[in-house]
Amino acid sequence: MEWDRWLLKALLRGMGQPAIRAALWDDGEIVTGSGPRLVVNNRWTLFRLMLNPTLYFGDDYAAGNIEVEGGLVPFLEAVNRAASRPGDVRRRSTGRRQRGTINSLSQSRDNIHHHYDLGNEFYRLWLDDEMLYTCAYFPRPGLSLEAAQRAKMELICRKVGLRGGERVIEAGCGWGGLARYLAKHYGARVRAFNISREQVAYARKQAEKEGIEGIEGVEYIEDDYRNITGECDVFLSVGMLEHVGPTNYRSLGQVIDRTLTGRGFGLIHSIGQDVPEPMTDWIDKRIFPGSYPPTIREMMDIFEPSGFSVIDVENLRLHYARTLEHWLERFERHEEQVAALFDESFVRAWRLYLSGSIAGFTTGSLQLFQLLFTRRGNNRVPWTRDHLANCGGNDAAL
Amino acid sequence: MEWDRWLLKALLRGMGQPAIRAALWDDGEIVTGSGPRLVVNNRWTLFRLMLNPTLYFGDDYAAGNIEVEGGLVPFLEAVNRAASRPGDVRRRSTGRRQRGTINSLSQSRDNIHHHYDLGNEFYRLWLDDEMLYTCAYFPRPGLSLEAAQRAKMELICRKVGLRGGERVIEAGCGWGGLARYLAKHYGARVRAFNISREQVAYARKQAEKEGIEGIEGVEYIEDDYRNITGECDVFLSVGMLEHVGPTNYRSLGQVIDRTLTGRGFGLIHSIGQDVPEPMTDWIDKRIFPGSYPPTIREMMDIFEPSGFSVIDVENLRLHYARTLEHWLERFERHEEQVAALFDESFVRAWRLYLSGSIAGFTTGSLQLFQLLFTRRGNNRVPWTRDHLANCGGNDAAL
Repeated sequence: MEWDRWLLKALLRGMGQPAIRAALWDDGEIVTGSGPRLVVNNRWTLFRLMLNPTLYFGDDYAAGNIEVEGGLVPFLEAVNRAASRPGDVRRRSTGRRQRGTINSLSQSRDNIHHHYDLGNEFYRLWLDDEMLYTCAYFPRPGLSLEAAQRAKMELICRKVGLRGGERVIEAGCGWGGLARYLAKHYGARVRAFNISREQVAYARKQAEKEGIEGIEGVEYIEDDYRNITGECDVFLSVGMLEHVGPTNYRSLGQVIDRTLTGRGFGLIHSIGQDVPEPMTDWIDKRIFPGSYPPTIREMMDIFEPSGFSVIDVENLRLHYARTLEHWLERFERHEEQVAALFDESFVRAWRLYLSGSIAGFTTGSLQLFQLLFTRRGNNRVPWTRDHLANCGGNDAAL
Repeated sequence: MEWDRWLLKALLRGMGQPAIRAALWDDGEIVTGSGPRLVVNNRWTLFRLMLNPTLYFGDDYAAGNIEVEGGLVPFLEAVNRAASRPGDVRRRSTGRRQRGTINSLSQSRDNIHHHYDLGNEFYRLWLDDEMLYTCAYFPRPGLSLEAAQRAKMELICRKVGLRGGERVIEAGCGWGGLARYLAKHYGARVRAFNISREQVAYARKQAEKEGIEGIEGVEYIEDDYRNITGECDVFLSVGMLEHVGPTNYRSLGQVIDRTLTGRGFGLIHSIGQDVPEPMTDWIDKRIFPGSYPPTIREMMDIFEPSGFSVIDVENLRLHYARTLEHWLERFERHEEQVAALFDESFVRAWRLYLSGSIAGFTTGSLQLFQLLFTRRGNNRVPWTRDHLANCGGNDAAL
């Protein structure tokens, strides 16, 4: 019908005319580029997309009301590129305002449970063998995921100048792989915090198995970063800041300030953005409730009020795209097992989430900041970065 | 007199009780530490110090009303360390509010003239042979100043991935050494902007002498960064941002936005700070009018509104301390010549300025940020930093 085609055209206009083709259930096609093809399978879906594309594109893709031909990642890349031009669809996201997320202690627990307690069995299907669910570091793009995750851990150890016997606090430790690496390879004494019950249970069992559980090795503590006490020589947080929320950055800075020794180093590794934009409604509601990737400016709320000096910022955006490509490839290989654990719409939702994240990093709507800091006037800072060169590139297990 | 000693005690309290000894003209001494010794030579100076220490310490040191025994740099380091504790003397700086400096086109011209047009003859006495008046890069702390300045230029070229024939715009080019390096060693075509007449004249003559002046090599243009037009593959600004003022960062971003090509790279190298504080009144009035070293947060005003991505931030604080130690050592060697060009109080003022800058960098009240950026989604970004390793470390001329 003419009316449906008019709506579809309006939708594409609102999306900034992405370089895609778009078709309706009755085969009517609109072409704004030679790229992948979007197929909207019914009128109700078309209406919902008009109402709130950033929410219903995800829901209706998961439900099978939308198909994408010619590659989901290239499709989402085209949409992202159009959205970063004037007429930005992401800016039309309804409801939440940026920085509006509060993330109280109990809200944080619910949010983290939603995503990270989907079952270790599920994550084991597509993460590396140490279950690292953060950006890897590829000294060469062709490195295996396992080697790249080890290279990432090695890079972090070198950046903070970790030495044997040093006390490390890790805020947000996932399944505990980094903490175990620090204890095994550097003889560090690590206290690793996490509010995901399932992750902590897994991490403890793994450390016990490897004989490094306890105060001389790794202690996993099921608690919020705001409750961290004690003292440390190195403060690490890899992939937690995304869940903290900008209103809490100052509190995080105070936690670091009361725990880090005078000559200690800290490193924060987080997804970020060039400009402050909320996550799409779909990601916020269905995938990562309460999440927000900060800009560098916003991250300064952690460091400035407590008087820390920023030593080094590295943007590893393309490394996260590469990491996600590995994850997506493994995920697709285990599609049937995922469907058996959940259902078909879960498979589609997670395919969209992983693909959308790849597109976010390749088009630059997402960044990955690794930021090294210390207290003002700490002259133990390394003279050059030469100790970071060729990090992990000679890993035997390629 | 008891009254004078009471005033001196109050002064030291206001300074946060630095680890120094302080004495009056009548030999009365107050000890707040075992460090260097401040001698106030008359009552009038003591009064002025009470009124505004951040202005009159400099003026009265230059005039010889204040002496420092046991090393000016250690003395200023002790004062800086005390000032970064509560009761901060720097916060008591009167008059100007941070970000309040406007720096219009004509004001900028006056400010730059004040410092940079003191005569090339003067600067030639203590800068390196290419007259680079910005932080050098010491791959090894023992490198010569000349080699370290070359290493800095090489590091910058590698960071921006400079290739033969590329068009470079340099905003604030000093005596033009970096621009000449780009043309000679990389075959770049450089347009270098500066509002200091004396510097531009020197730079042009030097380029003519070396046969690289002109549109295929280096063009030096006496104009403000706000008037830059044209297109470039690489945008550089090394040691200008300190004179721009935070209210103009957005304009600088617009200049870069209208000149940098889609896949180009930019690098800004600037003195900075962890927290926003005005320069001391003495530096602002006597040495660098209108100058302000930004925080990373403030620098984001250049990048965020124009949608640039930050790729890499390196803090070279200790390299600037080392650079300044070279300058101060050469300056002292030519003390008599400087006194003949100006007078004894000029010598003392510049000794204080160079020493205070060393102390600023060693204690961390000053930072040096080198920041690499590009447009959103530019996937030409290098995969690792390995191409930056051992930069300049094998320079033959040590």
